Amino acid sequence: MPDFSERPRRPDDHPGHRPLPAGCFRVQRPIRFSHSDPAGIVYFPVYFDMFNGVVEDWFTQGLDIDYASMILDRRLGLPIVHAECDFTIPSRMGDTLTLGVLIERLGRSSLKLRINGEVNGQVRLSGGLTVVTTSLDDFASIPIPDDIRHAMERYKAGCEV
Amino acid sequence: MPDFSERPRRPDDHPGHRPLPAGCFRVQRPIRFSHSDPAGIVYFPVYFDMFNGVVEDWFTQGLDIDYASMILDRRLGLPIVHAECDFTIPSRMGDTLTLGVLIERLGRSSLKLRINGEVNGQVRLSGGLTVVTTSLDDFASIPIPDDIRHAMERYKAGCEV
Amino acid sequence: MPDFSERPRRPDDHPGHRPLPAGCFRVQRPIRFSHSDPAGIVYFPVYFDMFNGVVEDWFTQGLDIDYASMILDRRLGLPIVHAECDFTIPSRMGDTLTLGVLIERLGRSSLKLRINGEVNGQVRLSGGLTVVTTSLDDFASIPIPDDIRHAMERYKAGCEV
Amino acid sequence: MPDFSERPRRPDDHPGHRPLPAGCFRVQRPIRFSHSDPAGIVYFPVYFDMFNGVVEDWFTQGLDIDYASMILDRRLGLPIVHAECDFTIPSRMGDTLTLGVLIERLGRSSLKLRINGEVNGQVRLSGGLTVVTTSLDDFASIPIPDDIRHAMERYKAGCEV
Repeated sequence: MPDFSERPRRPDDHPGHRPLPAGCFRVQRPIRFSHSDPAGIVYFPVYFDMFNGVVEDWFTQGLDIDYASMILDRRLGLPIVHAECDFTIPSRMGDTLTLGVLIERLGRSSLKLRINGEVNGQVRLSGGLTVVTTSLDDFASIPIPDDIRHAMERYKAGCEV
Repeated sequence: MPDFSERPRRPDDHPGHRPLPAGCFRVQRPIRFSHSDPAGIVYFPVYFDMFNGVVEDWFTQGLDIDYASMILDRRLGLPIVHAECDFTIPSRMGDTLTLGVLIERLGRSSLKLRINGEVNGQVRLSGGLTVVTTSLDDFASIPIPDDIRHAMERYKAGCEV
Repeated sequence: MPDFSERPRRPDDHPGHRPLPAGCFRVQRPIRFSHSDPAGIVYFPVYFDMFNGVVEDWFTQGLDIDYASMILDRRLGLPIVHAECDFTIPSRMGDTLTLGVLIERLGRSSLKLRINGEVNGQVRLSGGLTVVTTSLDDFASIPIPDDIRHAMERYKAGCEV
Repeated sequence: MPDFSERPRRPDDHPGHRPLPAGCFRVQRPIRFSHSDPAGIVYFPVYFDMFNGVVEDWFTQGLDIDYASMILDRRLGLPIVHAECDFTIPSRMGDTLTLGVLIERLGRSSLKLRINGEVNGQVRLSGGLTVVTTSLDDFASIPIPDDIRHAMERYKAGCEV
């Protein structure tokens, strides 16, 4: 499996590129025919779409805050203000990607998440998403509501042990 | 139109967030129903998909190097090893986004592009893509071929005037 | 270029598979890297996504009814209740697809469109979409508003000449 | 939940619109933010993309024929020559869609599948896909290989009991 990095990276060069701690929330995603480009590897925007789904599952299953009702009933949105990803090793149809979530920064009304993707314990990609908690009524940023902040603080503590 | 930045940014904080020079290659993209999420704004992975299309058009129309034949006939691939984007101001159905390309770094076998998106001259987003020129036969990185390098050097000189 | 039909089709077997009349609204779409699957041909759901964009452009440019303001301001939706497509000949990156729109049936509150895709005059695919005019406030079907109906009747008459 | 049909359908009008037999292969798919359009309902091409994933899972898990290795190692492709879907009742973020597979016709080198989508036992959509077994080396149709045909015959018999 090729490594697209121009030069070898030591794992400690870039902390996000190390395997996620054991306590972190993880989901598995099969790499599908539809994810693959004519070169047979995952088309990179697919990973960002997967990240959004991982965040949904993390809220609902990892934080116990129902994502759909947060959006639809509480009218709380999480627009992405910054997204980034290093794609270190490509993945192909038939691989199963394990995606895990780490809180890098918990601000007053924003949140920086790291999402790593691994296949059989090998880090394939490492992404970051910065989201701002926002009212869907007027699109103004609002402080992270207390129940969500507490759930995130508990998650952060449990994940990093 | 809301600004999702947490605090005002001065244009000189971040050079990528300034309007692109007049000589740069630009394409226009209508923001469609299909690009929009339930909050009515563009779903962020769509922008990364647009960036890939912009790079295709830039090769074919801006550099005069046919992208499809580069991939299919020359078997030269351009896998993305890093992608990032700041989404400063959201866009909505009915907007027309102008996307322009700037070469930030031209390496031996890699290339860093900046792609800015503007609506009516207002910078809405600023993305970066790092690609590695790669043989599609063995997925090894190869030096940027001379004809492509020369076209890029000409573009870079003309764009920044 | 392969023909996936199991047996030869005569053009008069299926009227939708004939080239569209000269008067019909047409748009061109480049077939991109991102549209292609690992076999190098367009992934079929991409065509349905293109159809939605073609309908948008047909409203705005072909009927002179701004699609975005129809959805956002008039709160008139066009949910698809039936979609179908015959994919006769696959298309590949580098092809330019011409997509044209024909009104097959104009009902009281529904509309059946045919959308054909051609490359260099060769019919590659022929799709059908049935849409229902719907209030986006309560999702009830409503009669096609008069201005839209008249624009469609004019289009139908002009297209089929 | 609105019903977009123009008039009530009796379940026996259209056999594909009845719930699938108990023995059929089923997968569950959460309806996500990313699947939803600005009207809050699933954007219809998403269902066709889901269908492709369901067929993958049906091969690998329901027929015990590894889909990825069928494509990549055996070089056997399954291009779609016809796709269709009735979208009877829209679905929204937070719904869990159960998608099941029925073989409608097993030909010499083609296959017609029905894929129904249900939420809590209510049929929301009913799609059909016609695929042709094809060599990925020359894109010629080939007879369905015996092991795959036998697995499909067993499935068909078990599903319809």
